[in-house]
Amino acid sequence: MRQNYSTKYKKMGKLSFLTNPASVAVIGASPNAGKVGNTVVTNIKESGYTGKVYPINPTATEILGYKTYKSVLDVPDSIDVVIVVIPSKAVLAAAKECAQKKVKSLVVITAGFKEIGGEGVQMEQDLTKICKDAGIRLVGPNCLGIVTPNLNCTFASAKPSKGSIAFLSQSGAMLTSILDWALTNGIGFSNFISLGNKADVDEVDLIMEVAEDPNTDIILLYLESIVDGRKFLEQIPTCVHKKPVIILKSGTSAAGAAAASSHTGALAGNDIAFDLAFEKAGVLRAATMSDLFDLGRLFVSHRLPKGDNFVIVTNAGGPGIVTTDAFETYHVGMAALSDKTKEALAKVLPGEASVKNPVDIVGDAPPKRYEDALEICFKEPPETVAGAVILVTPQGQTKPCEVAELCTRMYAKYPDRLVVSAFMGGLTMQEPSKILNNAKMPVFPFPEPAIHATGAVLKYRKIKNRKTLAEKKVEVFKVDNERIKKIIAGARADGRTVLLSHETSEIFTLYGVNAPKTKLATNEAEAATFAKEVTFPVVMKIVSPQIIHKSDCGGVKLNIKTEAEATAAFKEIMANAAKNGPKGAVLKGVEIQQMVDFSKYQKTTEMIVGVNRDPTWGPMIMVGQGGIYANYIKDVAFDLAYKYDREDAEAQLKKTKIYEILNGVRGQPRSDIKGLLDTMVKLAQLVNDFSEITELDMNPLLVFEEQKEGKNPGIAAVDVKITLSH
Amino acid sequence: MRQNYSTKYKKMGKLSFLTNPASVAVIGASPNAGKVGNTVVTNIKESGYTGKVYPINPTATEILGYKTYKSVLDVPDSIDVVIVVIPSKAVLAAAKECAQKKVKSLVVITAGFKEIGGEGVQMEQDLTKICKDAGIRLVGPNCLGIVTPNLNCTFASAKPSKGSIAFLSQSGAMLTSILDWALTNGIGFSNFISLGNKADVDEVDLIMEVAEDPNTDIILLYLESIVDGRKFLEQIPTCVHKKPVIILKSGTSAAGAAAASSHTGALAGNDIAFDLAFEKAGVLRAATMSDLFDLGRLFVSHRLPKGDNFVIVTNAGGPGIVTTDAFETYHVGMAALSDKTKEALAKVLPGEASVKNPVDIVGDAPPKRYEDALEICFKEPPETVAGAVILVTPQGQTKPCEVAELCTRMYAKYPDRLVVSAFMGGLTMQEPSKILNNAKMPVFPFPEPAIHATGAVLKYRKIKNRKTLAEKKVEVFKVDNERIKKIIAGARADGRTVLLSHETSEIFTLYGVNAPKTKLATNEAEAATFAKEVTFPVVMKIVSPQIIHKSDCGGVKLNIKTEAEATAAFKEIMANAAKNGPKGAVLKGVEIQQMVDFSKYQKTTEMIVGVNRDPTWGPMIMVGQGGIYANYIKDVAFDLAYKYDREDAEAQLKKTKIYEILNGVRGQPRSDIKGLLDTMVKLAQLVNDFSEITELDMNPLLVFEEQKEGKNPGIAAVDVKITLSH
Repeated sequence: MRQNYSTKYKKMGKLSFLTNPASVAVIGASPNAGKVGNTVVTNIKESGYTGKVYPINPTATEILGYKTYKSVLDVPDSIDVVIVVIPSKAVLAAAKECAQKKVKSLVVITAGFKEIGGEGVQMEQDLTKICKDAGIRLVGPNCLGIVTPNLNCTFASAKPSKGSIAFLSQSGAMLTSILDWALTNGIGFSNFISLGNKADVDEVDLIMEVAEDPNTDIILLYLESIVDGRKFLEQIPTCVHKKPVIILKSGTSAAGAAAASSHTGALAGNDIAFDLAFEKAGVLRAATMSDLFDLGRLFVSHRLPKGDNFVIVTNAGGPGIVTTDAFETYHVGMAALSDKTKEALAKVLPGEASVKNPVDIVGDAPPKRYEDALEICFKEPPETVAGAVILVTPQGQTKPCEVAELCTRMYAKYPDRLVVSAFMGGLTMQEPSKILNNAKMPVFPFPEPAIHATGAVLKYRKIKNRKTLAEKKVEVFKVDNERIKKIIAGARADGRTVLLSHETSEIFTLYGVNAPKTKLATNEAEAATFAKEVTFPVVMKIVSPQIIHKSDCGGVKLNIKTEAEATAAFKEIMANAAKNGPKGAVLKGVEIQQMVDFSKYQKTTEMIVGVNRDPTWGPMIMVGQGGIYANYIKDVAFDLAYKYDREDAEAQLKKTKIYEILNGVRGQPRSDIKGLLDTMVKLAQLVNDFSEITELDMNPLLVFEEQKEGKNPGIAAVDVKITLSH
Repeated sequence: MRQNYSTKYKKMGKLSFLTNPASVAVIGASPNAGKVGNTVVTNIKESGYTGKVYPINPTATEILGYKTYKSVLDVPDSIDVVIVVIPSKAVLAAAKECAQKKVKSLVVITAGFKEIGGEGVQMEQDLTKICKDAGIRLVGPNCLGIVTPNLNCTFASAKPSKGSIAFLSQSGAMLTSILDWALTNGIGFSNFISLGNKADVDEVDLIMEVAEDPNTDIILLYLESIVDGRKFLEQIPTCVHKKPVIILKSGTSAAGAAAASSHTGALAGNDIAFDLAFEKAGVLRAATMSDLFDLGRLFVSHRLPKGDNFVIVTNAGGPGIVTTDAFETYHVGMAALSDKTKEALAKVLPGEASVKNPVDIVGDAPPKRYEDALEICFKEPPETVAGAVILVTPQGQTKPCEVAELCTRMYAKYPDRLVVSAFMGGLTMQEPSKILNNAKMPVFPFPEPAIHATGAVLKYRKIKNRKTLAEKKVEVFKVDNERIKKIIAGARADGRTVLLSHETSEIFTLYGVNAPKTKLATNEAEAATFAKEVTFPVVMKIVSPQIIHKSDCGGVKLNIKTEAEATAAFKEIMANAAKNGPKGAVLKGVEIQQMVDFSKYQKTTEMIVGVNRDPTWGPMIMVGQGGIYANYIKDVAFDLAYKYDREDAEAQLKKTKIYEILNGVRGQPRSDIKGLLDTMVKLAQLVNDFSEITELDMNPLLVFEEQKEGKNPGIAAVDVKITLSH
């Protein structure tokens, strides 16, 4: 039955390691340089941590100037955070001591748990239980550690520079690579956190906490799986209104997903579902490792543009064209400059310059010319010119450092405009890049990533302006769920996982979805009565769990027009099935369904509407072109059933090509789109309410012309298949 | 009429500036440092040029140690190459002197020609004519100059390092940016050439020449337009068999194309057509500036793999998953390791390692473990393991330099395997990257570009193994072209640009394509005779250039079954048209077309086949799902008509979704695909032969079930529209 959307996941309180903990212990601290247990203590010390540090070591008395204890139980004060770096076999005992000591959180760097399978899985479960019972939050196991603005307790040999990017990674190696790369590329971090096996603290917990950190502008993640899709969808949408979240989710390929599941032991979900879920939650998705940082970097500029249209100011034509192409690829609008602006530009620019967007100030442009062009363009309101893309190529008069400096001045002067720049080159552009980065104005070596990032900022602007998922109220249709439960129970009692036509027909009728009337007759008398009830003409079909191909054994009769014919057909069908069907087939009766002549309607479109369940994200609705070619034409679109309303259904339908045809082209009437959307949202409610429904297919769902005074049924679900879980 | 494919473009002889010219003059040489005319002479001198140098300057007697002349006419010896850097107004006079002097080629750096419009256009035409008449090859005008292995005559302040990449660019600014960037990233060039306005020497001339240069491994280009599509298609396919060619073509967006045409004055073509042309020519296409070099760099390794499947050897799981995803994105095959190999790996790798592909040798892997894994995997034949992708993340035991060195050893030891590597990080990975680059083994900072490049190498391997376009012989159907010429001439005489149904019907009948018989009756008697001739029942339609909507004025009669009915219908249609048609409409008669009852065939599929002309690449064939919804369903595929054969048509058809349906699904018979393909190649011949046909649409082209003993016509072109040029 339906879950209450907002109460299942409660925040479990602040994660002590994120909020300047008063004390840190390291179980497995070592006096020997080069040992992991020594690196961790060194990093804590060198990160300028101001709280108390308790190395735990059975023999040493002092490590790096800190007094050492044999056990956490020997530490005189309370302990906020415990780092564990001892061998895996000793971790459970240490965790028990921590439980006894009532420490607040545990960061288990030690590997050898779920990721190795076998006994590792059990050990991880035991460790998690010890922590849960004691109210200890657990990070890891099998992680690299954590860096926060106050504390570095990783065993990485390099130290991240300070910055405003929070980076969370499910892969420790990805962290060390990124760390090394970031140091070379002048990128700094506020938080740098290794998620490890996510036995307790998961990505959602950390995103929610880090979003509150005043040192963080943006949250980037590398993930191989999401622990709990529902939790993600319930919590993250609120968070993205505070800070942008960008995720590189790997395992997108079939082979990659297989590698992911063997790697982490976590169940990797369907990639389309991830796209939909991220879209729904307002999370931006990176496609590659460099994407993640290219997209992320622009957000540190702390500036959301007030419109979608940008002006390009360039000292070379070629890069201007490349950038214009990128505008289209990444959905950035080209600002249309007014005649007044163009005239003003023409006055200050040389004759061979272009005063249309892209504004080409030509190769001999001194820095002043960039400034003049920007000043004039920024006289347009931000709705027309939301910002500028500055392209700089190294030419004789260019003076890139001066251009960089004037960019920072313009940025300060025009706080309502976003300025993005590509200083195209290598060595010549290093100094100007530093000037811009220091002013929190990220700069790119090529135009395409700059525009890709601008597109991401524009997308985020839309996300921030839209209602959050938490605020969204989804209409609930009143349905006799008790009756549906009974139908499902009936199928279960029969040992069936597929519902029969009269059962699906009844379910849809309960939802007010038009489906041809269907009844199950178990004897001749019922056949006559029911045939009359569903209204003639009718089609009659044998019902037997063992008989799949009903026609082949003479189990189908079409176009039955009278009660007498119905009685005769019942007899014949039952006899045929008994004679021609598989030996021992259980004959449950004959299904009697109204035969509707759809040819009388002016416009009939075959659609397919279906549902399947994603292991991470739950039920997913599909809609598109139906009929016998549906699998070949593949004109379908998907959405998650979570908080799915008519607006979602409409947006989804509009992604298909058949939508335009439904909407009426070439003088044809509009189809009953409203009826189709109704069916889609009702379907979502059904599968949200009944988690035992694993698959559902309506193909075809017939859609007729828009209803005028009830002249046609609007839609008709003529063939529906509902599959239950085992 | 058809052009002879192989004779139109003759090579115009070696470009003298590319082949170590014996002498170079610089018109506009200057003794003053900082002047363009000084930079050029300095660059010539410093590039180690061993030939004679003649600075031309009206006043100076000596520049940078070279004796100076007032005019090229004063130079005592012959001159191979002349560089021009004087103001544009003086260029024509200088060119005339060069013509008199019989110099071999001119590189005009000076700007102010076609790109500024107006008189610049005329000046460029004049300059080109002077050169052409004198047999001088002209580079530019409006270019940056050229760098070859022997000579640097650009005015760029930086000098490219030596390498094996030839880079040609239509944008000079792109060259200076790339040059600066390449210097910082350790990328060297053999040739570095600015195309400028391409008044004479164009991209094809240069690609063809550079492909012969033994110093060049790969040719990269930045282009905004292609001067002559036909020349490109005739010449480049031969060249790509020698050296890979990768092009970044900008102006892909509608807005970008507009910017391109205003920028260079060149006509930018349709982007789909560029994709098709590059595919046909065997040119690889880069999507972005960084792509161009990412894809290009791997080719300097001089190694084409012997298969499509690679093994990943990694010291971290996460990057292994990311790489597996990239394999799918970029069409690189995952090698399936044999049990024997897996067992051998299991023996040398630790228990927690993964011996499946990706082979995860885990975080504590010392260099030896990489070597062991590679040795074992390379025991598989190259068809199974064509090469390896080495992923290195910086971890405690990693020693990236040692890993890099063993990679170079393995590379030398296994000359039949390609080894691609991503050393993931920054500073830590700079030294190992140098080691690999020095061994001509390009290395990437992230896995995705490495795999993208591997995909490009695999694609190039296929290109190299396939027959070149030059070798391809296209079947020529014998058609009465004289009759078609007459039909076209008839339409022209009428002042029509659209052919009438009986004309298109006749054209297709000449090609042996089934089209319902159609005749034009100009009087009642003809109506009766022709109606009988095309066989009853027939449909009759008014023919008048002024009447577009024939039904609206009573100009159409269906299902005419007798001669008497035909006579009556003729009278009625003519009367209706006269009465209801636009005033003064010329009534040419009544078209009489056989009405075929297609409902009698088991399977009828509506297809669309069409042609339009791309300004650069010529006629383009379209095929796909037809019918009234064709424009909405958009299930169509394109190909160029150039050297288009049945195999091309089949490959094109297979790109549509409807193909599978034609091929027969769900127990239906196969459609007459052969007939459809025949029609497509005949159409290509028609539009190749008649360049006056600008557009052609068959919609629907009906395709019936595969012909068995001629029981159905296979296909029927029931509605064809042919549009002629004005």
